[in-house]
Amino acid sequence: MKEENPLTHFNPDGRARMVSVTDKEDTLRVAVARGVITMGDETIRLVAEGGFKKGDVLGVAQIAGILGAKKTSDLIPMCHPLMLTSVDLAFEIDGNRILMESRVALTGKTGVEMEALTAVSIAGLTIYDMCKAVDKDMVMGEIRLVYKSGGKSGTYRRRGENIE
Amino acid sequence: MKEENPLTHFNPDGRARMVSVTDKEDTLRVAVARGVITMGDETIRLVAEGGFKKGDVLGVAQIAGILGAKKTSDLIPMCHPLMLTSVDLAFEIDGNRILMESRVALTGKTGVEMEALTAVSIAGLTIYDMCKAVDKDMVMGEIRLVYKSGGKSGTYRRRGENIE
Amino acid sequence: MKEENPLTHFNPDGRARMVSVTDKEDTLRVAVARGVITMGDETIRLVAEGGFKKGDVLGVAQIAGILGAKKTSDLIPMCHPLMLTSVDLAFEIDGNRILMESRVALTGKTGVEMEALTAVSIAGLTIYDMCKAVDKDMVMGEIRLVYKSGGKSGTYRRRGENIE
Amino acid sequence: MKEENPLTHFNPDGRARMVSVTDKEDTLRVAVARGVITMGDETIRLVAEGGFKKGDVLGVAQIAGILGAKKTSDLIPMCHPLMLTSVDLAFEIDGNRILMESRVALTGKTGVEMEALTAVSIAGLTIYDMCKAVDKDMVMGEIRLVYKSGGKSGTYRRRGENIE
Amino acid sequence: MKEENPLTHFNPDGRARMVSVTDKEDTLRVAVARGVITMGDETIRLVAEGGFKKGDVLGVAQIAGILGAKKTSDLIPMCHPLMLTSVDLAFEIDGNRILMESRVALTGKTGVEMEALTAVSIAGLTIYDMCKAVDKDMVMGEIRLVYKSGGKSGTYRRRGENIE
Amino acid sequence: MKEENPLTHFNPDGRARMVSVTDKEDTLRVAVARGVITMGDETIRLVAEGGFKKGDVLGVAQIAGILGAKKTSDLIPMCHPLMLTSVDLAFEIDGNRILMESRVALTGKTGVEMEALTAVSIAGLTIYDMCKAVDKDMVMGEIRLVYKSGGKSGTYRRRGENIE
Repeated sequence: MKEENPLTHFNPDGRARMVSVTDKEDTLRVAVARGVITMGDETIRLVAEGGFKKGDVLGVAQIAGILGAKKTSDLIPMCHPLMLTSVDLAFEIDGNRILMESRVALTGKTGVEMEALTAVSIAGLTIYDMCKAVDKDMVMGEIRLVYKSGGKSGTYRRRGENIE
Repeated sequence: MKEENPLTHFNPDGRARMVSVTDKEDTLRVAVARGVITMGDETIRLVAEGGFKKGDVLGVAQIAGILGAKKTSDLIPMCHPLMLTSVDLAFEIDGNRILMESRVALTGKTGVEMEALTAVSIAGLTIYDMCKAVDKDMVMGEIRLVYKSGGKSGTYRRRGENIE
Repeated sequence: MKEENPLTHFNPDGRARMVSVTDKEDTLRVAVARGVITMGDETIRLVAEGGFKKGDVLGVAQIAGILGAKKTSDLIPMCHPLMLTSVDLAFEIDGNRILMESRVALTGKTGVEMEALTAVSIAGLTIYDMCKAVDKDMVMGEIRLVYKSGGKSGTYRRRGENIE
Repeated sequence: MKEENPLTHFNPDGRARMVSVTDKEDTLRVAVARGVITMGDETIRLVAEGGFKKGDVLGVAQIAGILGAKKTSDLIPMCHPLMLTSVDLAFEIDGNRILMESRVALTGKTGVEMEALTAVSIAGLTIYDMCKAVDKDMVMGEIRLVYKSGGKSGTYRRRGENIE
Repeated sequence: MKEENPLTHFNPDGRARMVSVTDKEDTLRVAVARGVITMGDETIRLVAEGGFKKGDVLGVAQIAGILGAKKTSDLIPMCHPLMLTSVDLAFEIDGNRILMESRVALTGKTGVEMEALTAVSIAGLTIYDMCKAVDKDMVMGEIRLVYKSGGKSGTYRRRGENIE
Repeated sequence: MKEENPLTHFNPDGRARMVSVTDKEDTLRVAVARGVITMGDETIRLVAEGGFKKGDVLGVAQIAGILGAKKTSDLIPMCHPLMLTSVDLAFEIDGNRILMESRVALTGKTGVEMEALTAVSIAGLTIYDMCKAVDKDMVMGEIRLVYKSGGKSGTYRRRGENIE
């Protein structure tokens, strides 16, 4: 007999599958993810000024992140297609780091953690792209889930994070 | 007179544009990117065993990363569409971290840094997705360019990184 | 205090967001959009004959319009992904103009105006593409919503339009 | 008067439309499809060994099939977008043939036959791609629906097929 | 004998094909397209202010237009996939109309007229989407090619248009 | 030492990669693929009449096949993105079978076999979709490469096939 795999994304043959959520109930699902991109002093100055005078790097990243959240099931092979009903991002400049946060929601059969994480990742990659002509040393990191609610597994809050 | 914007992705009106590479020459372009995903002891054990017995998490991540590299110009708004001629990834388990590396190449008018960074990011998100049933505390980070060659700006090597 | 923005697609930071429809009820939503493409006498003759003898320009436009409606949330950054349950188009040749009409429906949390407008626009662009070898002077215009029903804002009927 | 077309995918003008399922009820829908790919003795040996030592052709095909199922409404013009809640594939090596089976489910207004058939077709094409360096004579065939349940038309079982 | 079809997008059976450009030479191709969106006084005021205080409608439209240009061969069935090397848009507010212009270039085997027209159309649809909460009467129109250069058919300039 | 894998799509770690064609020369590449779809007598009659009176099933399949060819690198994980310069399909009704043929070309670094096979597969799936309301017993099969030319491996002609 084949033993059960704790990584539920694999079938008894050991191959990846889209886990069945057919029998799950529709509940309100919310997920919040965060990440950080670190850059040089001059680069961060250009981004900070951007919104006002020269081109809004964070505005482009915001749109890319929202579009990216909608592409999650096409990007992450085992993700379910989902009808997101709300996606928003927020950015904060903190020294030479940009703090990124996404918030995604829907009423559905499975959670939106991957959508929130994808939104942050694509937003970060877009910031990198918009700034790479002046700085190739940027680093994107600390991409993590900070909150999720809804579904059978209940609410998750990452330790040490403030969530409004 | 409008002053020139060092962030070349913006036009004189301050709006994002796809930078013209129309007049650039086709040269061989290579980019290498790296990233890390950190997880709990039990999770890393399941991934490490996966390739042999229960489902190859890294194999799924590899495919997602390659497909992701091909979607870069659809994900990152100002990226040029490119005909990639080579994409590969490598993973190494190091304690409770998975080290990820992508290598992308083509002969073309612009570099493939964003494609390499996207491959690593999508591979990391896929690992997260495959393991999140057992571990929601994973963190993806240190996503950075380590090498690029080709084009007018020449070769870039990130300090402190070994590249074969 | 940040004042409320009548353009609901912007968050309090002034950045675009996908408006939350999480709490809205599922109701039947219908939208009808129209547009026109104007072309030279010889071109319109070729299109009119096409369905019978030489190649059905409008048949290709019809399919492109339906596929386009399904891509709306990928094309228009702040649109919600929606499970359309009905899409159809109709064309009428009127002098040297082709009148285009799309009709889209679903039961869902938000309206399908953008899907109907996208269907007409992509159909019109496809007609342009199929005919541009003989006529580059074509003009696409009068793309507008003529009817919508469902949702809290109720029924909209554009003045001066006949709708069956 | 225009007579009714038994091919319901056409409107009264004889042009393709997305059939309205707006008024249908949400019911559980399941579909199972099968197909076969035939190849040379040496090729089948390489595939059979692959899972263990040299590269898992069927693992790549599995992922491509699942991603393909999710793209069905983008590939098949008149298909409705659907929120699949379960997709899995299975492969069996039988002489010099690989037997492929997909199983797709959701609760929705229309069936998932096309999603199941697309999953098998894309999985087969991927096997072809992974092996074509050593064998260009492979043939993909016998792609058919073997089971469907749910909806007004009820359960379909293809004669002569065993389904668990 | 089948007579030749002046609509080159059809094959001798009367079915649509992707016209062969296999034997064409790579030359520099440029296309400029324009369009207009007309809206109420209050709506245009909100858009005009947007860039400064409340949310940059035109910035979102710009990004959607550039992403749309890159999707042209996926949207317009017979269009060739092309590696665009430059895309930019410009907007001008003129009374209660927004004038839109796109400019696309590459070195390749076929022209970029459809890419320029698609950029304008998707930008216009995005403006509609961002403003439709306050104005459903907007009309998008006058979408036309104003300039193209490169290739065997030479330079096209639309009569009565100023192009820099 | 890791032995070389005859399945070149795998890297030395046994994971799938996009094979490098970076150093290959651009040559003219052509591929022809064929397939068959078998259906009931009544169904084939409806398809045969369709082009004339009631809706052109094969016209829809033709467009889906061409769009499918352009999506190949998104569908088949290890395929290179390619700028196809010519795609056409042909259909022939032979008893209760529809014979399908695709022909794809470009000048590039790698062949278009997968694009030709994908075009035939997606065309066949579309025929299935358009007819499934009257016939669920259809079978799609005999999907195979019949001709390829260009590149280092030279010309391939499948035995027993006539190619014009």
